[in-house]
Amino acid sequence: MTGKDGGADLHPIGNSPVVILVRPQLADNIGAVARAMANGGLYHLRLVAPRDGWPQPNAWRNASGADRLLEDATVHATVADACADLHHVFATCPRPRHIVKSVLTARGAAAELRAITARDLRCGLMFGPERAGLDNDDMACTDALIRYPLNPGFMSLNLAQAVMVMAYEWWTAQDQTVPRTLMTNETRIANKAELENLLTHLVDELDQCGFLQNLPKRPGMVRNIRHFFQRGEATEQELRTFHGIVTELSRGRRLRGRER
Amino acid sequence: MTGKDGGADLHPIGNSPVVILVRPQLADNIGAVARAMANGGLYHLRLVAPRDGWPQPNAWRNASGADRLLEDATVHATVADACADLHHVFATCPRPRHIVKSVLTARGAAAELRAITARDLRCGLMFGPERAGLDNDDMACTDALIRYPLNPGFMSLNLAQAVMVMAYEWWTAQDQTVPRTLMTNETRIANKAELENLLTHLVDELDQCGFLQNLPKRPGMVRNIRHFFQRGEATEQELRTFHGIVTELSRGRRLRGRER
Repeated sequence: MTGKDGGADLHPIGNSPVVILVRPQLADNIGAVARAMANGGLYHLRLVAPRDGWPQPNAWRNASGADRLLEDATVHATVADACADLHHVFATCPRPRHIVKSVLTARGAAAELRAITARDLRCGLMFGPERAGLDNDDMACTDALIRYPLNPGFMSLNLAQAVMVMAYEWWTAQDQTVPRTLMTNETRIANKAELENLLTHLVDELDQCGFLQNLPKRPGMVRNIRHFFQRGEATEQELRTFHGIVTELSRGRRLRGRER
Repeated sequence: MTGKDGGADLHPIGNSPVVILVRPQLADNIGAVARAMANGGLYHLRLVAPRDGWPQPNAWRNASGADRLLEDATVHATVADACADLHHVFATCPRPRHIVKSVLTARGAAAELRAITARDLRCGLMFGPERAGLDNDDMACTDALIRYPLNPGFMSLNLAQAVMVMAYEWWTAQDQTVPRTLMTNETRIANKAELENLLTHLVDELDQCGFLQNLPKRPGMVRNIRHFFQRGEATEQELRTFHGIVTELSRGRRLRGRER
């Protein structure tokens, strides 16, 4: 999650939505937006009337290597100009009033953006200025609004974090990663025969050292040990380690037996 | 998405996971983390060996009103100490090697956190320092790792943005908002009879002004107009506006007819 992909060569993948920052105020935020865009596979940045002009070095400083997005960013005088070649534009907006408009969740918007871009249409994602947000005329240029489900007790969202959530949802909308997997690296998950082999070794030593000498209780105790070892997916390497542990812990008793 | 919830009174909702920042470097980031936590309904912050000590004024400056989280934050010497009263700890980590560990997506982790906290167990979400990330000993203290599905060409994620994604997923995991809805505010969606009423009005005027005088083409043209008006959900207010538009556009012809 850390470090710097300095000078990353960010080649656009597919027909990704254009991020439109309307009247952005802080160059720091524009840079952080570019970084968040790169994280989520959004490559096209347009700036409508940036308050302090463009380009601004502070943006590059804060982009953590997403320089290409800043270099390719275009500046537009009006929202209409920034949207002219697009077919669908969604705008993030927390609390609009007195208007009739479709409202999407971030996830719903990402799914629709994927469906629309798959038809070879170009989409835009519009974000308002840091303090005031989008005005009513800006919103009238858009197809739908996006409102994130977030804590109603604390809705103040940094501009780059607002972009991060949409970039993350855009990427995730086509991601196939399973929710949970066991990363095994150099080893592999053990099969039941290998696990049985360890349990036999362990129970055999436990019988010999006297741990299971209470015969009425023995079956239940053996089952409980089995339950524990079945709880996770043991790997072949871990079973070998446990074979070693059991052998080494038992060595003293064996040596003692031999000495006698 | 903008503005400041200055001095927001952030009362914890339910048994939310503890965010553990391990050896965080920048106070600015700690503040931004608190803001992101508040956005997603995470209220408990623990700091393990913060590089520049604690408290630090810059954190408050960057928290945008999430002061309560910073005031309640606790400082711990070790990861083990920060985790002592927790039952499950997940850690974000992009590229671990040579270890055997379960790996969750952010969404998978949020679902599991909801399920675990619903059993009245306490969970932790661990984030590593800005540059180096978590070390191998830190990771050995955790139940599972979280790896976000993000652009493999640009994985450099700001600490506060990493927290934002998990906070957002935590909140969203229990959110019931429908993906798309029409916000109608003061008005309501028109029913088919009201729409029919407008279309009758419009077609009647189009007949009278001669727009539909090509009789063989008339049925198809009327159908196409109907198709357009059926495409969205018209509101009662919008239909009234269109009645007015049709009436006003037709006024000249009526007056001219009367004058003749």
